[in-house]
Amino acid sequence: MMNKTVTKEFREKWISYIHSLQENICTSLERIDEKEKFGKDEWERLEGSGGGGLTRTISGGKVFEKGGVNTSVVFGAVTEKMKGLLNKENAAKWFAAGLSLVIHPLNPYVPTVHANWRYFELYDEADNVIDRWFGGGADLTPYYLFEEDARHFHQTLKNAIDPFGGNIYTEYKKNCDEYFSNSHRNNETRGIGGVFYEHLRPSDETGAADLLRFQQANGDAFVNAYIPIVERRKGMDFGPAEIEWQEIRRGRYVEFNLVHDRGTLFGLKTNGRTESILMSLPPRARWLYDHHPVPGSEEDKLLQVCLYPKDWLNTIISEEDKDEWARKSNSC
Amino acid sequence: MMNKTVTKEFREKWISYIHSLQENICTSLERIDEKEKFGKDEWERLEGSGGGGLTRTISGGKVFEKGGVNTSVVFGAVTEKMKGLLNKENAAKWFAAGLSLVIHPLNPYVPTVHANWRYFELYDEADNVIDRWFGGGADLTPYYLFEEDARHFHQTLKNAIDPFGGNIYTEYKKNCDEYFSNSHRNNETRGIGGVFYEHLRPSDETGAADLLRFQQANGDAFVNAYIPIVERRKGMDFGPAEIEWQEIRRGRYVEFNLVHDRGTLFGLKTNGRTESILMSLPPRARWLYDHHPVPGSEEDKLLQVCLYPKDWLNTIISEEDKDEWARKSNSC
Repeated sequence: MMNKTVTKEFREKWISYIHSLQENICTSLERIDEKEKFGKDEWERLEGSGGGGLTRTISGGKVFEKGGVNTSVVFGAVTEKMKGLLNKENAAKWFAAGLSLVIHPLNPYVPTVHANWRYFELYDEADNVIDRWFGGGADLTPYYLFEEDARHFHQTLKNAIDPFGGNIYTEYKKNCDEYFSNSHRNNETRGIGGVFYEHLRPSDETGAADLLRFQQANGDAFVNAYIPIVERRKGMDFGPAEIEWQEIRRGRYVEFNLVHDRGTLFGLKTNGRTESILMSLPPRARWLYDHHPVPGSEEDKLLQVCLYPKDWLNTIISEEDKDEWARKSNSC
Repeated sequence: MMNKTVTKEFREKWISYIHSLQENICTSLERIDEKEKFGKDEWERLEGSGGGGLTRTISGGKVFEKGGVNTSVVFGAVTEKMKGLLNKENAAKWFAAGLSLVIHPLNPYVPTVHANWRYFELYDEADNVIDRWFGGGADLTPYYLFEEDARHFHQTLKNAIDPFGGNIYTEYKKNCDEYFSNSHRNNETRGIGGVFYEHLRPSDETGAADLLRFQQANGDAFVNAYIPIVERRKGMDFGPAEIEWQEIRRGRYVEFNLVHDRGTLFGLKTNGRTESILMSLPPRARWLYDHHPVPGSEEDKLLQVCLYPKDWLNTIISEEDKDEWARKSNSC
């Protein structure tokens, strides 16, 4: 059984971190946009039990067409429906706090980005903590493929994660490709991925402090992972053809978020704040019947890496590759 | 236990009907479009057991920006997952045939329309029919409210249905409002409704023949319910403000279809043909954060009848109305 006081302090540390991160990310994005600022919408949770959030959105910017950087700190009683999902018979109350962001730029050469870092606690009737975990990740959704951007994004995330253990990046990169994919479209991924992890459970307070640092390392890496890509691409010329392709890919983004994303569906079906949940949807989307880009075109190149996710940093050594290298070494 | 031969003939009658209806509807829509024709995509079902369909789509028309009028005749083995849903322990095989259409016009003053008529059979291991039912309906999604259009659409559907019994229209109109609504947006309906019905089970072959006629009456009414509205509105002037509102409402259409529509989700999650299922999505959609039309504006008038569905033909007499009328009669 965990110490209640430590857990309260711990929660407050996390809440304070996501609020300062929210402020930092908004400021960094405003600086690059030059035109628009993030608005502030504070809300209270009416359904369920309590808490609230701060929804910060931008729209009509010079660089960012639509985006949101939201924090929420919410708690409530465990419903019968949740009990089934949680698989904890003695669960009575829950607490969740996290930051979630989605940024949709105007220029089709600038990728959309999503990130989320969250912390969850579960209590029994006597307010003892019976479960707690962290989850999160960041992923990039370009409309046109620049391999250097993909490598930069993944490398920055990997650098942040590497100090925490051996092969974590490789595992979380794979999770991300698997999670952010449209099963109804041959598992086409939403973009070029990033990292995604769930249910990171500390075994004690030292472990919890380590995980908090891990989350902070991930959160702190975001601006460095994304902003240099925006800087490189924001001035590129584009026309109606690039906009059409951007809107088609945004249609896929909508499909993933509304059909498959567990967070979105859970929120919508448990009376979450709809406007804060659906701030993730793109400003514009397009659906053409049975559209396929011209093979070999720039549009097709992007589609191919969504259909066959790449190992951007060559961190995964498959058995076949190992054999191939062994053969090459032998033949030298 | 039902007679297998009769059922086969019956199925063939229904299949033949939906194919001729598909042809008729496409021809009527092409006539009004004047520019584009419906293409033909025949497909075979690869996953599951067998059958296929004919997907007919139009795009870039003078009147119709995007639309599909699809038929499918499919059959297969009942999976464990389906067994749970069907609640029939001895179910071994199934058969389904139907027509499904969604038409998205270019002009925001012309409403989007959806209709679907389907027939389903369930068999045991020995190929005996153990269940069979019809379902269907038609509903209208205007972007701007013209009460005469709403009344015309509902009246035409009611006229088709009325010969089949007392209060069916009123019941199916209510079903439609309840079904086509976004629970995550205070049950805002997708449009001004129409009729919707499911699980109409015949008790014998006479009943089955009656239900087939009922389906045909509904299917045959579609062109008369929709085309006069298109004729009235297709020449109206519009600008960027009307287009923006149309795209916002189309965003709601996407939300309903991808989050709530049972047919869409069943299709996507059982390896149905994605392009035929998602032909229902609009060509363009837009999401603005926390958008609300100006109170009293034309946009708001439409929204209000979605939030508070109207009884277009005054067929539902509420207890309050009855009291009100009683008071008025007494005071005269």
